[in-house]
Formats: sequence, structure tokens, C-alpha cells
Amino acid sequence: MEYKFSDRVQTLKPSAIREIFKYAADPSVVSLSAGNPSPDAFPAKEIAEISAKVLAENPISVLQYSVTEGYAPLRQHLMEYMKQKHNTGTDNDDILITTGAQQIMDLSSKALVNEGDVVICEAPSFIGSLNTFRSYNAKLVGVTVEPDGMSTAELEQKLKENPNAKLIYTIPNFQNPSGVTMSLEKRERVYELAKQYGVLIIEDNPYGDLRYSGEYLPNIKTFDTDGIVIYAGSFSKVISPGMRVAYTIAPKPIFQKLVVCKQGNDVHTNIWSQYVCDEFITKYDFDAHLEKLRQIYTKKAQFCMDLLDKYCAPAITYNKIDGGLFIWCDLPKDVDMPQFCKTAVLNKVCVVPGNAFLTDENDECHSFRINFSTPTDEQLEKGIKILGKLANA
Amino acid sequence: MEYKFSDRVQTLKPSAIREIFKYAADPSVVSLSAGNPSPDAFPAKEIAEISAKVLAENPISVLQYSVTEGYAPLRQHLMEYMKQKHNTGTDNDDILITTGAQQIMDLSSKALVNEGDVVICEAPSFIGSLNTFRSYNAKLVGVTVEPDGMSTAELEQKLKENPNAKLIYTIPNFQNPSGVTMSLEKRERVYELAKQYGVLIIEDNPYGDLRYSGEYLPNIKTFDTDGIVIYAGSFSKVISPGMRVAYTIAPKPIFQKLVVCKQGNDVHTNIWSQYVCDEFITKYDFDAHLEKLRQIYTKKAQFCMDLLDKYCAPAITYNKIDGGLFIWCDLPKDVDMPQFCKTAVLNKVCVVPGNAFLTDENDECHSFRINFSTPTDEQLEKGIKILGKLANA
Repeated sequence: MEYKFSDRVQTLKPSAIREIFKYAADPSVVSLSAGNPSPDAFPAKEIAEISAKVLAENPISVLQYSVTEGYAPLRQHLMEYMKQKHNTGTDNDDILITTGAQQIMDLSSKALVNEGDVVICEAPSFIGSLNTFRSYNAKLVGVTVEPDGMSTAELEQKLKENPNAKLIYTIPNFQNPSGVTMSLEKRERVYELAKQYGVLIIEDNPYGDLRYSGEYLPNIKTFDTDGIVIYAGSFSKVISPGMRVAYTIAPKPIFQKLVVCKQGNDVHTNIWSQYVCDEFITKYDFDAHLEKLRQIYTKKAQFCMDLLDKYCAPAITYNKIDGGLFIWCDLPKDVDMPQFCKTAVLNKVCVVPGNAFLTDENDECHSFRINFSTPTDEQLEKGIKILGKLANA
Repeated sequence: MEYKFSDRVQTLKPSAIREIFKYAADPSVVSLSAGNPSPDAFPAKEIAEISAKVLAENPISVLQYSVTEGYAPLRQHLMEYMKQKHNTGTDNDDILITTGAQQIMDLSSKALVNEGDVVICEAPSFIGSLNTFRSYNAKLVGVTVEPDGMSTAELEQKLKENPNAKLIYTIPNFQNPSGVTMSLEKRERVYELAKQYGVLIIEDNPYGDLRYSGEYLPNIKTFDTDGIVIYAGSFSKVISPGMRVAYTIAPKPIFQKLVVCKQGNDVHTNIWSQYVCDEFITKYDFDAHLEKLRQIYTKKAQFCMDLLDKYCAPAITYNKIDGGLFIWCDLPKDVDMPQFCKTAVLNKVCVVPGNAFLTDENDECHSFRINFSTPTDEQLEKGIKILGKLANA
């Protein structure tokens, strides 16, 4: 049988990161290429406690089919929490529980993007989302990420050039992979431009609670008096990614279409894990848990930056980060970055080549991404020492 | 903001069944409209045991990100189980764990169906799958379901008429909603026709283990020497639908595309629940559990058919079923079926109007679907008595 795949997946490739994971699976290789929470970061004891409780109290509700919108108490508690703590969400919004935030990109693409429509992305941006947009045959248009967030001048130009732009996809806090946080001025400007050009924004905020330094900045969604922002939040980085529980706060007409699309996608998100998340954020001290995570990661982030200073200067430079899980490292312009990453793997340290995060992987790129949340301190030191040696050789 | 949704969701409506659920939520209404497993059918104690064990033994693996393909031991055990017990799956196939079987329809559509391509479905068929195909702008072409399965003469004609047919979607065992089981001859003929016309088959088999009478019939997938069958299995009806764990056994080149599509859809299926399913099918007596389910449902199915004989004859006729969760009831041709269903709701019993399951909801239809797994015996008797009274009035 010669298989005829759809046009939309003809060119879709497995994520470059996954290909790199094949090397990273070798236990002798130090992997700085993942994006997994630290093993210390899981409230495993609490999850086991809650799970035993809800299975004892409500076994049938926890195991039976549930509604597509999500577990009603969790939706209500999240809406209240996001409103109170982040001034995010209004009476014109509703909340949908999703199977990871990745599903928000999938449902939004399905509901809003025709084949050939443009999705404007930060360049670089999260490869998972880029691939989802690609899987709907969207045309990706990149906007350069500057140290204070995407270039709003370039954004305006791209909006002018692309009247069929449907979405602006942004990760304003501690962006993956650049580590950059968007300034308040740029958040306001991005919102104004989206409004002016009639384009919706997806604000993806998986790392928002993981701020280690600098001033708290409001979500773009807090400006959303016009109903143009789809906010994506997730428990993956703050409770457990394996449970695949995330949520989107979206204007009601969009919410309704996302619900219909989700019905045909996976009917509803694992309801057992929704019960667990709900109990954890309401009956336990969620804020203390977030503070504990910040302590773990503040230490690890600083340790990682100290190692980069110690072993990698001057050849490797990087932007200091205020939060998140990633540091974006730059090589001198005369260094062949893909070759450098290959050599690094042969020398037993694995990083992600920066071009994997571009809207066009063939664009020139001299950067690579490292992650500090997954490796141990020993692994971090060993890996970064090797990178420094190779770059400064 | 005036929202511009994509072409594919312009006409997509919330499932008619969900609309009916609004009435069914009224506790004074007897709902025969669901498709939920019976509350007796959940191995809740075992699930609680296993969950406590895996969270104690492997807390990080159970809560951390996992691979898109699914939990490796579960994949291996399922492949062995399906091969041994159902002769299903060959060395040319691979297995992907999905977030419910609904996701198999979504990923297969994304990977294989261009907008405007034809998906051939049984008429009537499972509305959830039909809506998924619609959400990719597929054109649905229905083939009449006869008492021994879809009309293969009509299937051949539709294949001739539609050179852009990409998929044949079938539920050969105890079909939802018709209750019909496809004969061995027709299974072979459907396979031959698919092969001849170069069209793939999705064989959806959520109820296969729930046979109450009649002879076991091989899956269409057992004929698949040509690599043209995507088999969809699920734990929803035999362990728990709330966990959303299902699996597809598909030819390797298709499997690979489904994996890439799933990466962009939800990254991976809830890994905790995958651990639980794996332990349940390997360390517990899964066959004894299935036998227990068959005992529960054999009794309920017979009870339901006895009630139909007692209260609904002669106005309502139905096909006796050999398994599954649904019975398809026919009204006389001169009865306005949608009106009958509305009157039934006003009289506090809720069924699903049959046209909801057609490829074109506006086609004439004199049938409705009832479910016997969810209601109690008292509710079944009360509901069916009302239906009989209304139909024979």
C-alpha cells in the first residue's frame, strides 16, 4: 500500500527536540535539552493523598465520562483564582479545561485558522506550538524577539503585510526558548496592534508562576476589554505534566467553538486528574507550593548562570533570566552552531540547536537552548564545563 | 469583536446528544440517552490499589512528561494481548496510546483527510466520530446499515462514485447506535473492497469485549495483510472512560504520522492512567473482569429487551442485540420521530432521535436509540413503560 497522507502533514516532521532526545537517552550523555520539571518539584505525597481520598469518596464520578468543558468546581476555582491573583478573566470570558496547553494551540488552530492563514509567532518560539500551527497548514511568520520581548515595530509591519493573519502567538513570561520577558510597554503595544488589525492573541503562560527576580508584570489578558485574547495556563510546570491538565480563559464565543472542537478531539480531559488538581489548589497551600518551586528553581537558575560565567565566557554569551526553565546561549557569529551542537553530543552533552525554534529552520542561527530544571547540579556543572571548553577551544 | 471562525467549524454544532443531556440533567427525567458504563462496572477498588502502588513506587515517572507513543510496557502488553487473544496486529503494525478513541478519529483525519475528501460511514453511525470527520471538512457519505452490517453493494457503489474517498469508518461489533454486528462475510467483503479501491479502513471496536450472545467474529484487522486497517481499541467501556486511555494498532507508516500529529495535539496521554491500565491488565485477572462485565450487561440487555416486548410492542420494534450498550428502536413510518422524542422528554423520558446519527441530519428517520447500561432497572422500566404508552396511544 502506498499511503497518501493529507497535505497538512506531508512536510510535518517529528520535533527536532525529540530527535535529540535519542542521544539524550544515552545515560553517559548529560542532557541539557529537556524541559521537564525538576524531580524535587512534584507534590507526589499530596497527589497520592488526594487521589486516595477522591477515589474513596467519589469513585464513579472520578472514573466515569465527564463533560467536555471540564470539572465544574475546578473551572470555578481557577476562574476565581486567576481573577483574584492575576486580574485575568472577565464576565465575557469562560474557562475550558484542556489536555495540556498543547491542546489549546490545537483547538484554537482548528477553530480559527484556515489553511494558508498566517499565524504570527515570536522567532524563536516554542517548537511544539509551531508544529501544531503547521499541522493545520498555517503559514508561520516570525517576529524577532528582543531583550524586552518581540519587536513591536516588526509586528506592525508583519500585520500590515499579512491581511490574512489570524493569530499572534506569544509567551510573554520567560519565553521558551529565549528566556526573555516582555516589557509592560510591549504587552500594551501588542494588544493595541492586535486590536487595530483585528487579530486574536494567544497568550501562552506556562512559566508565569516561576519568577525568580524582577517585577511582576500583568498578563496581556488583563487588558482584554475587546475580547481578543485567548489565555493559556497550565499545571504542567507547577503540579505535574504527566497529568496533562491545562486551561484556557477565552472570550465566550471562542470558548464555545473550542468546546465543540474538543468534543471531537478527546471528549474531555482525564477527570481523575482534574479532581486532583482541584483539591490541590483549594485544600492545600498552593501558594506555599509555588514559593517552594521558586526557591528550587531560583537556586538552580543562578547556579546555571554562574557556571556559564565561569566556564563559557567569553565565547558563549547569554541573556540573564528572571524566571522559567531555559537559558538561551549565543555563539560567536563565525561559529557553525549546528556543528557545535553535534560536537557537543559527541562530547557527551546535549543541547537544542536554536534553529529548531525558528519559523523557518533554515534561517541562520548562532544560538542554542539549555535547560537547568531537569539535570542535577553535578550534571549541569559537567555539561556546561564541556560546552565552555568546546566553545573556547 | 466580530469573530471569524475557520471554514471547518462554521457549521459544526454541539452534538445533538449533548443538547439532549440538558434535559437528561433534570433528575425527574429518566435518561435512556447516555452511553456511560454502569456504575457497577468500574474496578474502583483495584484502581485505587494500583494507583497508590505506582505513586509510591514510581512517583516521578507517573507524574513527569512521558513519550508521545505511550507507556512502553502498556504498548507491549497490549500488542501481545491483542495478538494472542484476537489475532490482531502484525509485525508491520505498531501501537499508539491515545486520549480516548475519539483522538484516533481526530489524528487519522488530520493525517489522512484533505478538506473535501470523502469519509464513508455507516448510516447511522457514532455521532462523535462523524463530528470529528466534519471538523476536518471531510465530506461524509453514508452506507445503509443492514441487520448483518453495512450494505456492501452500496459500499461498492459509493467507492465507485467517490474517487476521493480516503477512509471507511466502521464499528463492526454491536454498532453504536444500531446495535448491529457485521457478519464474517461482510467483514471480508469490506476489506476486499477497501483494498480494491485503495481506501483505508478505521475499525472502531469499543464494545468488542461486551458480547452477550452469538458467535465470536474476527476483527477486520485480522485480514490486514495489506496494511490498510487502523484498529481502534479502548479501555473506556471495560476499565474507565474518565481516564481517557485508548489505543490504535496501525500500519507503521500511518502510526508514525499519527505520532507526529499527537505530539502537536496533547504531547502524550495521561501517563498515570496508562500505568494503572497496564497494571490492571497484567497483574489482575482482566479476563475475569471482562466476564463480570458481560454478566452485568447480559442481564441488563435482556431486561431491557423484555421491557420493550412487554410495553412497546407492537408500535415500537427493535433489532435484538448480541452485545454493546445500545438498542435501536423503530417507530411506524407514519410517526413523526423527532416529535415523538420531544413528547417523550415532556413525559420525563429522554432518548436520542436517530437522525442525530446520520451523515445528513435532515434525512428521513423513524428510529431512536436507547441505552440500558447507565439507568437502574427501575429507571429502565419506568422509561420504557412511558415510551410504550406514547407509541401505542
